[in-house]
Amino acid sequence: MTNPLKQGSTIGILGGGQLGRMLAIAASKLGFKTHIYEPGKNPPASQVANKVTTAAYEDTNALIMFANEVDVITFEFENIPETALNTLETTREVLPARNALATSQDRITEKKFLEKLGLKVAPYANINTQTDLLSALATVGAPSIMKTRRFGYDGKGQVRLKEVDDGYTAWEELGKTPCVLEGLIDFRKEVSVIGARNQSGEVVCFDPGENIHKNGILHTTNVPADITSSQRMDAVLLTGKILNALDYVGVMGIELFVTAEELLINEIAPRVHNSGHWTQNGCVIDQFEQHIRAISGWHLGDGKRHSNVLMTNLIGAEVLEVDTLSKDTSIGIHLYGKEIVKPGRKMGHINKILANN
Amino acid sequence: MTNPLKQGSTIGILGGGQLGRMLAIAASKLGFKTHIYEPGKNPPASQVANKVTTAAYEDTNALIMFANEVDVITFEFENIPETALNTLETTREVLPARNALATSQDRITEKKFLEKLGLKVAPYANINTQTDLLSALATVGAPSIMKTRRFGYDGKGQVRLKEVDDGYTAWEELGKTPCVLEGLIDFRKEVSVIGARNQSGEVVCFDPGENIHKNGILHTTNVPADITSSQRMDAVLLTGKILNALDYVGVMGIELFVTAEELLINEIAPRVHNSGHWTQNGCVIDQFEQHIRAISGWHLGDGKRHSNVLMTNLIGAEVLEVDTLSKDTSIGIHLYGKEIVKPGRKMGHINKILANN
Repeated sequence: MTNPLKQGSTIGILGGGQLGRMLAIAASKLGFKTHIYEPGKNPPASQVANKVTTAAYEDTNALIMFANEVDVITFEFENIPETALNTLETTREVLPARNALATSQDRITEKKFLEKLGLKVAPYANINTQTDLLSALATVGAPSIMKTRRFGYDGKGQVRLKEVDDGYTAWEELGKTPCVLEGLIDFRKEVSVIGARNQSGEVVCFDPGENIHKNGILHTTNVPADITSSQRMDAVLLTGKILNALDYVGVMGIELFVTAEELLINEIAPRVHNSGHWTQNGCVIDQFEQHIRAISGWHLGDGKRHSNVLMTNLIGAEVLEVDTLSKDTSIGIHLYGKEIVKPGRKMGHINKILANN
Repeated sequence: MTNPLKQGSTIGILGGGQLGRMLAIAASKLGFKTHIYEPGKNPPASQVANKVTTAAYEDTNALIMFANEVDVITFEFENIPETALNTLETTREVLPARNALATSQDRITEKKFLEKLGLKVAPYANINTQTDLLSALATVGAPSIMKTRRFGYDGKGQVRLKEVDDGYTAWEELGKTPCVLEGLIDFRKEVSVIGARNQSGEVVCFDPGENIHKNGILHTTNVPADITSSQRMDAVLLTGKILNALDYVGVMGIELFVTAEELLINEIAPRVHNSGHWTQNGCVIDQFEQHIRAISGWHLGDGKRHSNVLMTNLIGAEVLEVDTLSKDTSIGIHLYGKEIVKPGRKMGHINKILANN
C-alpha cells in the first residue's frame, strides 16, 4: 500500500445523499469511520456515519473544523464550489483532486480535455452569446441537445431541440446561461465504464454495463454489456488514458455512446456512479469499496465479475414495490432511507442476479 | 410480508460489538435506521448507527427511552439480563423472543430442550454441588470439558479435563459456579448451520460450513462443509425443528459435531454467528440482512451460495496483515473499526472466494 490510512481513521465525505451513504457503508466495512459534510438536514448518509456536519459550503469555519477532524476528504458529487475546495485543501488532502473536478464541472472544459487525449465526443458548440447560439445552430444543427455548461444532472439543465428553430426557446428555458449544444448521436447503445486508480497508479476497470434511461434518469444497467470484445477493450483503454492523464485517485464513471463506427464519450463523472451499483452484487469488491481503497492508499480489487447483474433504479413510488421484489431471492435490494417518496426521486435500486460466472 | 416495518423505521440493537455493527450495516442497506444500546463507550457499532445509547442494562429509564425510540428490538449476544428484557418488552417487541434467549443462556436448559425434540447432544452432567461433581465425574468421566452453565463465549468459562482427577481443580478454577461437564466427542468435523425463520414461519438455511477453532476461538469456516448429502439434509432438518419449536424469528447459529454415526448438537446461539460471516461474500442476501429481514417482517433470502468461501478470523495482530491480504483480489476484507489491537481480540475477518457456482 502507498501511505495507507491507519485503522480507525476517519474519511470525510462531502455530500450526504445515497452515494455518500453507500460510500460510508463501504468505509465501515474496511474499519474506517466516516464524517459527512452536507448543507441539508438529515441526509441519507447521516444515518450511517460516525459524525455529521450540517453546514453550507460557504461556511469557512465549518469547513476548517471538518477538515481538521478527518484524515482524507472525498465527495459524492462534482459540483463542489471552488471556494470550499480552496479552504479544505489547505488543511487536508481532497481525493480525487481538483483537476478532475475542474475538468468535469464544465462540459466544455471536459470535452476539450478529452479531445486533447485523442478521444472522441459528439459534435458540439459553445454558447455564451446570442451570436454563439446562431453559430452553434448552424454547425451542430438539430436534432440536438442544449445543456448548461455546469450543474446539470439526471436530465436537469438540458433541453432537446427537434429543429433548429427550437434553439432560441431552449436557450431561454435554460436561463440564457453558458450552454453547450451537442449533436444527437445515432448510437446503438449507451454503455458505461467504472474505472479506478489508486495512489500507486494501479488502474482497474469493472466490466462495461449497458444503460437504459427513462425521462433523463438512469433506469437499468445490464452487465455485461452486449458489445464486441474489441469495443470492450477500447472502452477500458480509454478509461485508463483518462485516469492516468488526470493522475486520478478514486473511482470514475465514464458514459459512452456506441455507434456503428466508434465509441464517443458522453460524459465523465469523478465519483462513484449510478451505473456502477451492479458491482454491489456482482463483484467481491464493489465500486464503493474500490473508491475507499483508492483514496485510503490500499490495493484495488480486480473488478472481476462473479455474476451477471441487471440493476434497476427504484424511482419515486417504485420503492413501494419492495414486498413483491423481496420475494425474488435472486434480487439484492438497496434502499436509501429517504422517508419522503417523491416522483423522480431515486429511492433505492435492485440488483437482479442473472447468472453466475 | 407480515406486518413489515415501514421504510425509515428504526431497529434497536442491544450490544455494540462487531455483530451489532454488521447488523447495523445490513439494516442500512435496506433503508432502516439503527439505534445501538451498549454499556461500553465508543463501541464498534456506534460508528455506523444513527443513534447510540450508552447505558447499563440495569438503567431502567435508559431502557424505556431506548424502547420508545425504536420500532423493534434485537440483539447481538444472548447474555442480556432478564430484568432488562422485562423492561424492554413492556414497550416494544424483542426478536428473537425471550424463550430462545432463556433456552440458550443456560447450557442445561438448552440441552434438555434439544433432547426433548429428539435431538442428540454430547453426554453431560449438571454440577451444582460437590456431590454433583463426583457424580458427573463418575458418569461422564474424562476426557471432558467443564463449562459454566451461563455467560461463556469464545472458549471463556471452560476448562478441559484430561483425567477425572482434574475435576475438582477445574471446578475451583471456574469459581465453583453452576457448571456442566460435557464428554469430549471424538468428532470428525465440526460444522455449523445458520438458519433463519421469519414472522410468517418461513424457514431458510445457509449451507453448512466446516469450522476449525484455535485456542477456543473460531479460526476458519470453509463452505461447503465436506459432509455427505444426507448429513447436510439432517443438519438442515434439525435446524428447522429447533426454529419451529421456539417459534423463532431471526437468524440462529447451530454448532454440530459430526461423528462417524451421527450429528450431535454442540450449542445453539440465538443470533447471527461468526461461522456465518462467509455469507457476506458467498450469497446475495447474507446472514445479517437475513436477520434484519426476519425481524422486519420481510421475506427471507433463499440462502443460495453463489461462491465457495473460506472465512478466516483476524485475531489480534493478524489485522496488521491487511496490506498483504488486500493484494489478493479474491479476498473480501471486513474490519470492525476497533482501534486497540489486543491478543485474542476479534479485529476483523476475511472471506476468500474459492470458486463460483
